[in-house]
Amino acid sequence: MRNLITYTPIGVVKNYFYDPDDPENIRNTQSILILDEKYIPALEGIERYRYLLVVYHIDRSSGYREKVHPMGDPSIPERGVFSTRSPCRPNPIGITVVEILGIEAGSIKVTGLDALNGSPILDIKPYEEHFDSPVELEREKNMSNQPTETLN
Amino acid sequence: MRNLITYTPIGVVKNYFYDPDDPENIRNTQSILILDEKYIPALEGIERYRYLLVVYHIDRSSGYREKVHPMGDPSIPERGVFSTRSPCRPNPIGITVVEILGIEAGSIKVTGLDALNGSPILDIKPYEEHFDSPVELEREKNMSNQPTETLN
Repeated sequence: MRNLITYTPIGVVKNYFYDPDDPENIRNTQSILILDEKYIPALEGIERYRYLLVVYHIDRSSGYREKVHPMGDPSIPERGVFSTRSPCRPNPIGITVVEILGIEAGSIKVTGLDALNGSPILDIKPYEEHFDSPVELEREKNMSNQPTETLN
Repeated sequence: MRNLITYTPIGVVKNYFYDPDDPENIRNTQSILILDEKYIPALEGIERYRYLLVVYHIDRSSGYREKVHPMGDPSIPERGVFSTRSPCRPNPIGITVVEILGIEAGSIKVTGLDALNGSPILDIKPYEEHFDSPVELEREKNMSNQPTETLN
């Protein structure tokens, strides 16, 4: 039996999508990340980034399903939910890279987010090649594979 | 007052890092993601991917701090924690792109993970350029900016 983990949302997503829609449509519009006022000082420095990772709770997930059709497309054979981005995960956590369009106190206007209006925001992180890009992972691996002789 | 959100870990990280260490060192070694047996069927299809996003609970975070030194380096001026990848976040959720080295039933051997031994795993997602890369975000934006005339 595993211990439960409890989080408190730091804010909420605002946009015009109140009901599930094509994620593509949602991503192509603008959303506003409204952070609780107490977190405004914790945003200091975020303006130096162009992209953020937004971590949110998919509160309208229909619940866990072991197997799903990728992209909800019944013409694609079902697969394990962990090999898809379906919301029907045991822990419905959504993660999307967004582009910052503007920042005003605790409100961040973004594009690229696929969350519905009202989704609770759990975390905001700067997008860093170092952690978030496979390209960077490859580069590091190649560096650590270099024979040490060449470093002398 | 916001509603609490509760998750149940799906598994645990195994590696040789029992105490906080340089994240670079942790990433350069191998870790094993051990999923609870009941989730083995939900992994079906994951072998078609090379990279995963691992979402984990940073259970040894020292707690929320509004301002931190980026990378814990006191020579870098403090900033808001949301403009860093520091573990001292209100909700200590870690997200890392990892490379799959091998899969055996509910165990996935990976490299690139920066989680300590015993970290509870919350979610595993295939890394998809479509959701996870700013490059893809740019491409989509450029496509939607194309004048419709050129599509006829």
